[in-house]
Amino acid sequence: MKCEMCDFSKEIQHKIFETTYWVVNISNNQGYLGRSVVILKRHAGDLIELKPAEWKDLMKLIKKMEAALRKSFGATMFNWTCLMNNAYKKNPPNPHVHLHFIPRYNHKVKFGDIMFEDPEFAHFFNRERKISVSADVEQQIISKIKETWGV
Amino acid sequence: MKCEMCDFSKEIQHKIFETTYWVVNISNNQGYLGRSVVILKRHAGDLIELKPAEWKDLMKLIKKMEAALRKSFGATMFNWTCLMNNAYKKNPPNPHVHLHFIPRYNHKVKFGDIMFEDPEFAHFFNRERKISVSADVEQQIISKIKETWGV
Repeated sequence: MKCEMCDFSKEIQHKIFETTYWVVNISNNQGYLGRSVVILKRHAGDLIELKPAEWKDLMKLIKKMEAALRKSFGATMFNWTCLMNNAYKKNPPNPHVHLHFIPRYNHKVKFGDIMFEDPEFAHFFNRERKISVSADVEQQIISKIKETWGV
Repeated sequence: MKCEMCDFSKEIQHKIFETTYWVVNISNNQGYLGRSVVILKRHAGDLIELKPAEWKDLMKLIKKMEAALRKSFGATMFNWTCLMNNAYKKNPPNPHVHLHFIPRYNHKVKFGDIMFEDPEFAHFFNRERKISVSADVEQQIISKIKETWGV
């Protein structure tokens, strides 16, 4: 069965980083600068299916991601979600574990000639806040994050 | 500094379960039946501060919770979020790690004379979907979940 997350995890042009078990791809929605998706490299449908090594690796990855976004763009704090709703639009559902990483900012950040804002800071993120950046700016964002990754 | 999550973690009338490092309390909003909050027992403000034993314990807890909700109320799948936005309304912020557990249902469930519905199933959860249940029904929900907890 076709899996969008398996496909997305292989789209290397969007990749920020990968570990043994996870790939981090930049989200196509940069409404929150640095928004990313953390995708399990193998097809498994629920958090309860994670193996201890995958879970342990995720913890390390979270630390690296948060540190990198603080350093690269001065992110203030982070929202994490693990939802998998879309996969249940199909019958049978075919979910694939992934997490959404939404950096939040108590200040504006100008990058690539775009002013990124978070007027809902300290509140639930605004699902209507969508910014599509050019492939060029996307690569600049990835490069900027990678500069600070794991440092 | 006052911490609402420290306080909430000690409100034993809402407790479903606890492990060495985490407490699970039923949410006061039962818009999604079995909605709960998983609270770290010590005051720490970010996922990156979790110790390996706390992280490992969380994985076991997630497995138990999902299994229990499938058995008790037939939950179909689960949304997890770790946000901590509210803590940043104050200056300085004083966040305390907690996760929101939102069981999702592809069917209606009648319990305690209340019909719980999830018309947005397979879509983002509806933040306006709020049900306050009586203390009596809350205890019935807790009991029903505990019956299947860890089985």
